[in-house]
Amino acid sequence: MGISGKSLENHLKIKNLYTKNIINSKIDELVKNKLVNEDRTTLTEFGRSSIRVVLAGGVFDIIHPGHIYTLNAAKALGDVLIVVVATDNTAIAMKKRQPLHTQEQRQELVNSLMMVDLCLVGQEDNIFKTVNLVKPQIIALGYDQVHQEKFIVEGCKKIGIDTQVARLQSPIPDSSSSKIKKEYGESIHGI
Amino acid sequence: MGISGKSLENHLKIKNLYTKNIINSKIDELVKNKLVNEDRTTLTEFGRSSIRVVLAGGVFDIIHPGHIYTLNAAKALGDVLIVVVATDNTAIAMKKRQPLHTQEQRQELVNSLMMVDLCLVGQEDNIFKTVNLVKPQIIALGYDQVHQEKFIVEGCKKIGIDTQVARLQSPIPDSSSSKIKKEYGESIHGI
Repeated sequence: MGISGKSLENHLKIKNLYTKNIINSKIDELVKNKLVNEDRTTLTEFGRSSIRVVLAGGVFDIIHPGHIYTLNAAKALGDVLIVVVATDNTAIAMKKRQPLHTQEQRQELVNSLMMVDLCLVGQEDNIFKTVNLVKPQIIALGYDQVHQEKFIVEGCKKIGIDTQVARLQSPIPDSSSSKIKKEYGESIHGI
Repeated sequence: MGISGKSLENHLKIKNLYTKNIINSKIDELVKNKLVNEDRTTLTEFGRSSIRVVLAGGVFDIIHPGHIYTLNAAKALGDVLIVVVATDNTAIAMKKRQPLHTQEQRQELVNSLMMVDLCLVGQEDNIFKTVNLVKPQIIALGYDQVHQEKFIVEGCKKIGIDTQVARLQSPIPDSSSSKIKKEYGESIHGI
């Protein structure tokens, strides 16, 4: 929980349903059980080893129902889902075009999703810096990221991170690029 | 809370952080304070009058950062944000094209957003059936829905619903349709 620099208390204030008392007693319990350090913000080694962290990534210039399916499937593989959005430069290199929204806007977009526990902006040109920071038990690749599997597995080995790679299927095979091009050439912000 | 047919308990199970005990004691408290009925699912008249409900609507075939800004602004106007997605037929009539995703997929997409308390599929051809069901204190119109203000105000008067209409501004003036067309003609699902 220390990655974001957000306090645990803020992280738990989901939809404003938690009262300050409930949050504090929950943190008390976590500290008592040695899952969270006395700073009430960071996980202990025992706490970190008690949760399975799943890491997923992408550009996320928009979110469509296929993303929801994929991110729910990723979340189901563990306890905590961390998503890394590509920096603007990486996005340009990946997609051969400028994203419509800045990395901060794309981060906010992904952070607005219920199943995402934390969204980070990636490191420039190096996914393994983020992998090393998060140390995920599982890296979830989307249906269009399958070609990256070997690259990810070998890179993790190199930096000594023991992680599994999961491949997620596409739920919306009918939404072909040509159909989308025909339908949505005019405007995304009018949708 | 009775609109969705979901139990209050399910509605409160956000991100699995609430334990069954916390949920039940919260409902006990709400029933004791006569905000929720003895059925533990529906609001009392007093409970309903204690919350300001905001209603927003649209097609939501995809979600982009502009939607996040607008929906956060809508949520800030009250306590509960209900979003209605247009039926497939209404979406075709509004946008003059078939949406890429079914009304159920678009509902699931919007229900995945943190600031949205409940997403409903609209009634065929008649926004006022939904307005009459939800009875919102505030209807929030997006920047591209401003032309609908008079229509909404007059329709609400006709069915005797006392509601305010709020207009929300666009946060992303630089994302013009022509720019989007140029950048994203190829594919949405590749984003």
